[in-house]
Amino acid sequence: MPEPPSEAGDGSAYAELRERFGEISDLGRARALLAWDERTMMPPGGAAARAEQTATLVRVRHERLTSDDLGRLLEGLRDWSEGLEYDSNEACMIRAALREWEKARRVPGDLRAELARAASIGETAWETARRESDYAAFVPHLERNLELARRYAECFEGFEDVGSAYDALLDDYEPGMRTAEMRALLGRLRDGLRPLLEAVRAADQVDDAPLHGAFPVEIQRELMRELASALPLEPGSWRLDESTHPFSTSIGEGDVRITTRHDPAYIGAALWSVLHEAGHGIYEAGTDPALRRTPIGHPVSLGFHESQSRLWENWVGRGRAYIEWLHPRLAAAFPDQLGGATAEDLFRAANRVEPSLIRVEADELTYNLHIALRFELELELIEGELELAELPQAWNARMAAYLGVEVPDDARGVLQDVHWAAGAFGYFPTYALGNLIAAQLWELAGAEIAELDAQVRAGELAPLREWLGRRLYRHGAKFMPRELAERVLGGSFEVAPLVRHLEHKLGEVYRLD
Amino acid sequence: MPEPPSEAGDGSAYAELRERFGEISDLGRARALLAWDERTMMPPGGAAARAEQTATLVRVRHERLTSDDLGRLLEGLRDWSEGLEYDSNEACMIRAALREWEKARRVPGDLRAELARAASIGETAWETARRESDYAAFVPHLERNLELARRYAECFEGFEDVGSAYDALLDDYEPGMRTAEMRALLGRLRDGLRPLLEAVRAADQVDDAPLHGAFPVEIQRELMRELASALPLEPGSWRLDESTHPFSTSIGEGDVRITTRHDPAYIGAALWSVLHEAGHGIYEAGTDPALRRTPIGHPVSLGFHESQSRLWENWVGRGRAYIEWLHPRLAAAFPDQLGGATAEDLFRAANRVEPSLIRVEADELTYNLHIALRFELELELIEGELELAELPQAWNARMAAYLGVEVPDDARGVLQDVHWAAGAFGYFPTYALGNLIAAQLWELAGAEIAELDAQVRAGELAPLREWLGRRLYRHGAKFMPRELAERVLGGSFEVAPLVRHLEHKLGEVYRLD
Repeated sequence: MPEPPSEAGDGSAYAELRERFGEISDLGRARALLAWDERTMMPPGGAAARAEQTATLVRVRHERLTSDDLGRLLEGLRDWSEGLEYDSNEACMIRAALREWEKARRVPGDLRAELARAASIGETAWETARRESDYAAFVPHLERNLELARRYAECFEGFEDVGSAYDALLDDYEPGMRTAEMRALLGRLRDGLRPLLEAVRAADQVDDAPLHGAFPVEIQRELMRELASALPLEPGSWRLDESTHPFSTSIGEGDVRITTRHDPAYIGAALWSVLHEAGHGIYEAGTDPALRRTPIGHPVSLGFHESQSRLWENWVGRGRAYIEWLHPRLAAAFPDQLGGATAEDLFRAANRVEPSLIRVEADELTYNLHIALRFELELELIEGELELAELPQAWNARMAAYLGVEVPDDARGVLQDVHWAAGAFGYFPTYALGNLIAAQLWELAGAEIAELDAQVRAGELAPLREWLGRRLYRHGAKFMPRELAERVLGGSFEVAPLVRHLEHKLGEVYRLD
Repeated sequence: MPEPPSEAGDGSAYAELRERFGEISDLGRARALLAWDERTMMPPGGAAARAEQTATLVRVRHERLTSDDLGRLLEGLRDWSEGLEYDSNEACMIRAALREWEKARRVPGDLRAELARAASIGETAWETARRESDYAAFVPHLERNLELARRYAECFEGFEDVGSAYDALLDDYEPGMRTAEMRALLGRLRDGLRPLLEAVRAADQVDDAPLHGAFPVEIQRELMRELASALPLEPGSWRLDESTHPFSTSIGEGDVRITTRHDPAYIGAALWSVLHEAGHGIYEAGTDPALRRTPIGHPVSLGFHESQSRLWENWVGRGRAYIEWLHPRLAAAFPDQLGGATAEDLFRAANRVEPSLIRVEADELTYNLHIALRFELELELIEGELELAELPQAWNARMAAYLGVEVPDDARGVLQDVHWAAGAFGYFPTYALGNLIAAQLWELAGAEIAELDAQVRAGELAPLREWLGRRLYRHGAKFMPRELAERVLGGSFEVAPLVRHLEHKLGEVYRLD
């Protein structure tokens, strides 16, 4: 590889770049620890100080990321990096750094501060509005967030092929993804799943009683620790805690943290959240160590990230093979609660479809329809095609059309999610994209790992983890998601594999034709 | 108060200073959380990444603290602050900030990095050397640390009244304290305690069997939580965890964290470490909220800090009144282990004196002799009066002279503490200074709180906490320790109160006429 241009004397500009991004990465990871601690360990009295500490770390990191010095350093390395092999870590790192620097520089500090402030105020207002099911009280905050989101999007005029406000917003969560493609994917997905939902609703219903009952939390804790330990996570490099909303975070190499929650009346809450969050963690842990503390040392996008949580939760965790492995363990921990339920009963219970009001409680099929609805509405809001005054009606009408459910109040309707309250427009569709990617990967895994099913049934998950690591995890964020899809999925994002997967599984569960 | 000089337009330079020190404080607190997490929660796999994250936070904080900008800002405020009332928060803050800035600026970045590196290498080498009781292998590291400490001290030539290398080192832990005063205090303390130790050794020995036995850790945990909850710590603003070496830290206002350790064969390990660490935490939590996120928003020195851990551990926790309150609780948790021990038996057991090899296991009397020995030796090393080759012999000779114990090997002798391995010379004497201050404060508290003894016996610790808060805690680091001693103790540091305290308590325990 050609020598990198030198800034002065024997110091290499590339080494200097590594150094600077190492610091930027450390500041981001320290902030992740503050956030993890806030949600799992912090005494409530520490909240005000923690908000200030977090704001400082975010600001200091941002200052370093957007500095003139760093810009000059990157410019100086641009030509050199273009002479390197496209796939080399160095070339990928400089490409990613240039993109990150430019995106960060386009947003004035004032606007960024305003966005953070409005998000924080919006979240607080949303908590009250949701509690009181008072959409009207929430409208001014939503209006403010929308206005700021449009102003934010304007900063990206002329950036790459960004052609609309929603393009710009989406790019923060799924770099390079554009509205037109997302609209086409989610439209096809919605249309592809609705006949399946019809068929399921017409079939004999499935009994999920084995998952409900009295599940003492102490025993749940022990079982979850056992299940997590059986996942392909390196011993001594992760921990499992509890939080109101389960989440996953990576504090640095060798330090993945996942959380779960225990519902004493439903074992599923803990069971599949452990698998879901562990999926995120397995992906984080799989990045090539050579990329750590660089701008590409992490999963590439929210869509790919969610593909791994879903893959481990739904394709592994709700698949027949894993449930056959799980069944004796669950029965040993909860003999009475499980009654005489067989592995087959458990498999059917785990895959029960039930259109319902709340996204985070939705089953594997209807979840995607929740997302399609949110995507359509937030796109219309950003594009000014839908007035805020009409949002609840539009929400309720689409809930009836897509899911066949009646929304009784806004708390269980348009006010249920925090995303818009926090100014996060463009985030929702990555959840469904994750399902598409998971389905595509699973078909490939099935074709390439001869004994996959038998391995999972025996609780041998390492081969799948190895395959995913080689195929996806190790790349970190070296390539843009679209490029990664070409390399990893052998093409573009597709709807058909997810529809096939659900048709096949639900066909068995509901004994369709 | 006169208007502060303005930097530009309507921005006040003082507000700018607050802002900058707010960030510096936040970076320090974030680092404290990283350290707490490392010792209580972090999976072992995260160690390497954590070291880098910590180094980055320390470096970024240091850069901000030593910036030219901050220096100019402070210079611009110097005259203004000298026109303010001496005791005002603003004047105190600027005085402290100027001192901190100057101290930080005097040390070249290279030397600081070298000190950190040598400390880290030294600690690792020490772990092996201690394990293998191999002093010779440790000598090169100690030599390196000593050389660097002397170079560090040279940076402070002409700083205030610093007149020697040890003066400069001591100042980092006990600002304004000088070698001559410390030497006089510890010499008098050593000489004052040796006759008492003779008398105790000649008396009938005390039985501490009630504290030893089989104490199931689960029950210890519950009891410690109960005892900590009964201390004057605000509910919802602290937590208690476990670590190999108990410690205390403050992550920010309303967020104090203490740790303990459980020895399944000795209840005292947990009991008095909870009180000790809580003492540190109670002091941290007591700083005037108006001082938070400033250079004076924390306890003033290690000596004062240790005075509070010792006061709650030994004056409260090993006092007869508290033990009378504790006795029924301990007996309820461990009825069999305590046998028929009365409160008086427990009081005597808690105050047993036994000259021993290891400082951290020493009793309240001999602990001070351990410190006197370390102080004398490290002073002689820094001043070049003692060769490293002769250090173990000097250690062993003084152990025999002061404590009457024979040192069987260097692991239990000169290699037992980490301080010198980490380059911390000047730290040890603050432990004994803390005992002096605690004794002085306790005499004042007894004179000013009429019902102190009865309150403690009833478990009412809030009045003592209030008194200490008004007297000491609220000041944070507004004044130099010497000034604070004038205001809080009504004079200078003194040896007599500690000697009186030990003579009185051990007189009862050992029934010395």
